[in-house]
Amino acid sequence: MDIQKLVKPNIRSLRAYHAEEIPCKVKLDANESPYSGGRDEGSGSRVKKILQTLNRYPDPEAKALKKILAGTLGVKSENILHGNGSDELIYYLITTFGGPVLYPTPTFSMYGIIAQALDEKKIEIPLDKKFDLDIDKMLAAIKKHKPKLIFLSSPNNPTGNYFSSERISRIIKFTLSHNPYPLSLVVVDEAYQPFTGKSKFLPLVGKYKNLVIMRTLSKIGLAGLRLGFLIANAEVINEVNKVRLPFNVNALSQAIATEALKNKNQICSNIASIISERETLFRAMKTIGGITPYPSDANFILFKVNDADRVYGGLLKKGVLVRNLNSVVKGCLRVTVGTPEENKVFLKMLKQVL
Amino acid sequence: MDIQKLVKPNIRSLRAYHAEEIPCKVKLDANESPYSGGRDEGSGSRVKKILQTLNRYPDPEAKALKKILAGTLGVKSENILHGNGSDELIYYLITTFGGPVLYPTPTFSMYGIIAQALDEKKIEIPLDKKFDLDIDKMLAAIKKHKPKLIFLSSPNNPTGNYFSSERISRIIKFTLSHNPYPLSLVVVDEAYQPFTGKSKFLPLVGKYKNLVIMRTLSKIGLAGLRLGFLIANAEVINEVNKVRLPFNVNALSQAIATEALKNKNQICSNIASIISERETLFRAMKTIGGITPYPSDANFILFKVNDADRVYGGLLKKGVLVRNLNSVVKGCLRVTVGTPEENKVFLKMLKQVL
Repeated sequence: MDIQKLVKPNIRSLRAYHAEEIPCKVKLDANESPYSGGRDEGSGSRVKKILQTLNRYPDPEAKALKKILAGTLGVKSENILHGNGSDELIYYLITTFGGPVLYPTPTFSMYGIIAQALDEKKIEIPLDKKFDLDIDKMLAAIKKHKPKLIFLSSPNNPTGNYFSSERISRIIKFTLSHNPYPLSLVVVDEAYQPFTGKSKFLPLVGKYKNLVIMRTLSKIGLAGLRLGFLIANAEVINEVNKVRLPFNVNALSQAIATEALKNKNQICSNIASIISERETLFRAMKTIGGITPYPSDANFILFKVNDADRVYGGLLKKGVLVRNLNSVVKGCLRVTVGTPEENKVFLKMLKQVL
Repeated sequence: MDIQKLVKPNIRSLRAYHAEEIPCKVKLDANESPYSGGRDEGSGSRVKKILQTLNRYPDPEAKALKKILAGTLGVKSENILHGNGSDELIYYLITTFGGPVLYPTPTFSMYGIIAQALDEKKIEIPLDKKFDLDIDKMLAAIKKHKPKLIFLSSPNNPTGNYFSSERISRIIKFTLSHNPYPLSLVVVDEAYQPFTGKSKFLPLVGKYKNLVIMRTLSKIGLAGLRLGFLIANAEVINEVNKVRLPFNVNALSQAIATEALKNKNQICSNIASIISERETLFRAMKTIGGITPYPSDANFILFKVNDADRVYGGLLKKGVLVRNLNSVVKGCLRVTVGTPEENKVFLKMLKQVL
């Protein structure tokens, strides 16, 4: 039987996202934190209590979690929408507003994958040579294609840099002042914001009503929980909330994230360690002949080598897993900042492979 | 600013699913199990281990969980797709196959809500007077509207009865033998299957390639985890898997569900208690004047009263929360089977209110 005949045409040509599990000793491929945010003793009794009430559905509104997050971010709970990871929120945004969906490339792959899954048109605009937004091409494409959604990952995965704030602002203002307005929602995906001091956009949510900020706990030690958030004006949140599944974030993730966010010192200290290690790693990589590391505002470093596939395979043979981006950014690999020990192993093995 | 102008028309008329949290002493409104599946001591160390590695993304394929589930159900892992609750799997099915989406009414509300969110046409066919499938009308509507998906909740929420197996089979065979075939996927949503001995459809997945079975852990003590499953032939699973978000089930839910499924005795004994209590509760309700309880194959009982809104409000004032279905099945309330103590409180308060 040909099930394909029943499948929507946009799905037929889609491939399943391949998150292969590759055995390794040092795992530096997925932009995870090397430090678990779930280690603290405080969560023990909380977890026990949740285990005893797992027969109950989770709080559909994630009130306790949103309250503590709102306090941390300096916004109101009504400005926050909780997702089963940012992935789910991208799904909901595209379900709510439709396409075209515009984003620069290379960038986080899920914008394009989900747009295709939901049968919406994708508009991809290459970044300039400095991996920044090509503002003229972006504005021209926005004018021409009238995208409902614009996704800007900043700091950008996989290039690592923060986009020019001035250019992001121009895109927001252009789409906001368009007649009929607004032309588009501008989603600034700040998954890697904790690793840069350069975010200026969260405070602008009140000013620009078509601005949506996306944040996640996945890069600060809680990837296993699957928690992402939209921060936007309440009108946007209310619309996206219509397509949110009522119990999209499970009870344990809600409880453990709430506890973890109370322990801000631990989170901040882990982030500071990663930033400091990123700089150490970057300086060390600069001294290695035959590779070009790119400056990073994130928890990973993109670097160019002569033969990406060979270097990737060589590192893996030595037990070090990085991300091979050869098909996305020619000649490039991406290494996540690990613990000082992991980074030393990576550097040692990289030198041996080159 | 009018964000509405940016929103897709199908979303504008959609309302957010309202899962209100209503304070009460005895909560019998949500078809949850009264017994938590997360209480056993065994999960303690497992949870601790997961907390220590929450910085890592969860297993995207949920291999350990699917393996134990496959063994329990007597199918292969390749026939299972894991979801963040059945809700997410309904979302994925409609994303993959599109509409029209056909289902009998009254039934589980999410089929219609998600179809509308995804802008697909809904075809609703009323059940017959015995709350069974109106097979002639169903077949005529299938012929006319050529639905891509047919959802059959059996046992059906909120009516509680299992649909005639012969009628379900006729729908499966009709859509399978249609030219060009298959006309539709038939999704038998067996969320409440554990509470009936009548499921004949799981073994038929190998025979009917357009048959999809949906199961959940939400009714057997693990609603807080959010875990649902599709069981279907591998070709169907592969297609739906393309639109699945890679990390849709978090690490803790995977680990705790895997542990819980190892402890089958506890799960089965809880289910047996609920079935036994359902019969006790049903017999007691039959003796109460002024109400009509309907026989149930599920973990809840639908019953008719003279003034549903008044009885609902009266029970709530006395601390007993049931589901008011007056707007869905005129004059009806739905009570979840609780512990023997909870059911006694419910019966006592019901008599006082009537």
